[in-house]
Amino acid sequence: MTRIFATYDIETPVGLAHAADVLAGEQSTGTFVKLASETDELRARSAARVENIRTTSSSNAPSLPSRKTGNTYERGLVTVSWPLNTVGTSLPTLMSTIAGNLFELAEISAIRLTAVQLPKEFGRDNPGPQFGAEGTRAFMGGHTGPLIGTIIKPSVGLRPSETAELVKALVDAGIDFIKDDELQANGPDCPFGERLSAVMRVINDHAEKSGKRVIYAANITDEIDQMWRNLDLMQSVGAFCAMVCLQSVGLSGVRAVRNHSEALIHGHRAGWGLLSRSPDIGVSFDVMQKLWRLAGADHLHVNGLGNKFTESDEVVAESARSVRRPTTSDHSLNDAAMPVFSSGQTIWQIAPSRKVVGNDDFIFCAGGGIMSHPGGPGQGVTALRAAAEAARDGVSLDEMTRQSPALQIATQFFKRPSSP
Amino acid sequence: MTRIFATYDIETPVGLAHAADVLAGEQSTGTFVKLASETDELRARSAARVENIRTTSSSNAPSLPSRKTGNTYERGLVTVSWPLNTVGTSLPTLMSTIAGNLFELAEISAIRLTAVQLPKEFGRDNPGPQFGAEGTRAFMGGHTGPLIGTIIKPSVGLRPSETAELVKALVDAGIDFIKDDELQANGPDCPFGERLSAVMRVINDHAEKSGKRVIYAANITDEIDQMWRNLDLMQSVGAFCAMVCLQSVGLSGVRAVRNHSEALIHGHRAGWGLLSRSPDIGVSFDVMQKLWRLAGADHLHVNGLGNKFTESDEVVAESARSVRRPTTSDHSLNDAAMPVFSSGQTIWQIAPSRKVVGNDDFIFCAGGGIMSHPGGPGQGVTALRAAAEAARDGVSLDEMTRQSPALQIATQFFKRPSSP
Repeated sequence: MTRIFATYDIETPVGLAHAADVLAGEQSTGTFVKLASETDELRARSAARVENIRTTSSSNAPSLPSRKTGNTYERGLVTVSWPLNTVGTSLPTLMSTIAGNLFELAEISAIRLTAVQLPKEFGRDNPGPQFGAEGTRAFMGGHTGPLIGTIIKPSVGLRPSETAELVKALVDAGIDFIKDDELQANGPDCPFGERLSAVMRVINDHAEKSGKRVIYAANITDEIDQMWRNLDLMQSVGAFCAMVCLQSVGLSGVRAVRNHSEALIHGHRAGWGLLSRSPDIGVSFDVMQKLWRLAGADHLHVNGLGNKFTESDEVVAESARSVRRPTTSDHSLNDAAMPVFSSGQTIWQIAPSRKVVGNDDFIFCAGGGIMSHPGGPGQGVTALRAAAEAARDGVSLDEMTRQSPALQIATQFFKRPSSP
Repeated sequence: MTRIFATYDIETPVGLAHAADVLAGEQSTGTFVKLASETDELRARSAARVENIRTTSSSNAPSLPSRKTGNTYERGLVTVSWPLNTVGTSLPTLMSTIAGNLFELAEISAIRLTAVQLPKEFGRDNPGPQFGAEGTRAFMGGHTGPLIGTIIKPSVGLRPSETAELVKALVDAGIDFIKDDELQANGPDCPFGERLSAVMRVINDHAEKSGKRVIYAANITDEIDQMWRNLDLMQSVGAFCAMVCLQSVGLSGVRAVRNHSEALIHGHRAGWGLLSRSPDIGVSFDVMQKLWRLAGADHLHVNGLGNKFTESDEVVAESARSVRRPTTSDHSLNDAAMPVFSSGQTIWQIAPSRKVVGNDDFIFCAGGGIMSHPGGPGQGVTALRAAAEAARDGVSLDEMTRQSPALQIATQFFKRPSSP
């Protein structure tokens, strides 16, 4: 029987084996009030199963406040499986199953969902990324190298016409990719439609003159019907990249965009810290990115190496690699997303980012790393592109500075981060 | 200028005042790279503002792993406000704003969003609960007292016909309300449409014979288009209560159901522990319940007093009270939801639950508390209803047992919980 597997890092005062049984029971047939209708055949057909338990450590105090207490809190990795026939391939139902009431169990004093393995049926019944890296480059009319991008700042406050002026400066600087901030959606002071029209006039003019179609990731995040209106508006003005705040709209919102969309879906993970920040409660990026890609995301934010937030470079690197691995057991599907690096990025992080990804199929967003270049934003983009070429050709930054004055200035101006 | 207010419980190694400034900056204009376009006028118009700071404690170690460290970690409540003109009244955008990238800030070593105050415009632009308690009773053809309900168990494994048989036993027992488990949605072994038809035949037959329309909360949780098909199916067979796993579909999913729905929305909070379990990261129920009600939820799960999970009675009571308070500053709106108590509930928790709510407008779900009654489920329901009448009339359980043999047996059989 085909099954879904999920692995949890849990801590418990009642012993890992018992805690795993409680979790599997709670999340399937319900073990503790055995009813007449709960026959052995029904349980064999429908119950979740504990597949593996591995103890990793123990302590004398619970990591989270807990109703049940004990002298020893055992910690370890527990893998549970569910029959596909019971759960089905709907992503919201999958969430209720693998990330449902289990976080509140009294027998558990810490729990993180760390991994999920999905059978190929999920790839069959969910759309996955419509375009990926190849499609992204096709929209641009062809492009080589990583996409050098930036975020419109200030995050909020610019009127549509002011936004378009800034976009003009950025496309003139030779940028590949421009995105709205996650805070800028459809507020009264900068309505989506007006902003989109003003920005796309600049983007389209630039494409006509230069032959280069710069990507504008317009933040369509909103209620479903409004996102669909936003997508229609985009199509009417030739915009082809919709940014969606994944956690703000929810999984079914992402899928609703994908169903209605002929645009790239640029997945922003605003609010990610809520799931990632604590070692004792949460869901790993590896789990969420699979669901977001199955729902249709083409691009996924992964933070940046040497970022200004709290994730370590190791976590960021693993996130960037994860979005390129298969979502299900069907490895023949082409369902990779493009990782998007951002947060405190400058010329120093380009080569390490490329090394993590293994090729140029990534988006590299810099704010200050472009705008603050002493030679202006044009030089900022030129420097980043030179750094990307150096990384591709296996040439050191130092060597590359001899060919690129913009890069040389950048290496002197931008402080090298303590990592990577 | 009309503003939105949010309060956070934060911990920081850089001092509360500075941490609050960083949070307000990150979540509005972006303070740290001051651009030419970021004029004083723009900031005055658009920036978030720190409204209040109150220190509550301090410690020598961070509660969560943190990039920035210090000798002292100050903890306290910080209130920040945003101009409505910048954010607008879209709930997904509100989420990106009040619960966005701030959880990952390096300056913060713990952060919980504890409260939000919304201007009346949110009530104007969002639908809110369509029916509430009054509408719920109207669907039933009139009803007094709390709704005595139960959950179909085993959670998964029953075929549609087996589910209907169990529902037959429950309606014969005199139950008011029956819900699907959150794990039971539209899996191959028990498809939504077949289950719905089988169950509604029983419910409709019963209504015809008895004049009483029992509520069946059918778990429609799925992708948007499938939820809409499920709602249409419901209407075709006379079903009028749609259960939605709020966190599995996301905020925009709840709103999409409300927009399409002539049914009660029964909001299930599977996965709630992810936001609530840690004292150091998360979002309070008071915040989320406002957003879920604004999106359209008529009923909201609040756990139960003396529950089998981890929340204290104090937290549960506060959750139950919160869903009846106004969602916005417009206190003239009738936007209360019905709280749903469940998890290890028996006759002992009815009076305390009524005391918390202040009246009978609540749903009281018991599983074992009905099915395990020595006299059978019929006596189980009768006992709960007697306990509810006693609570309404201010009569002690002990006194009521003299009038109700079913209640007397229940008080002897069911163990009195240590609380409430």
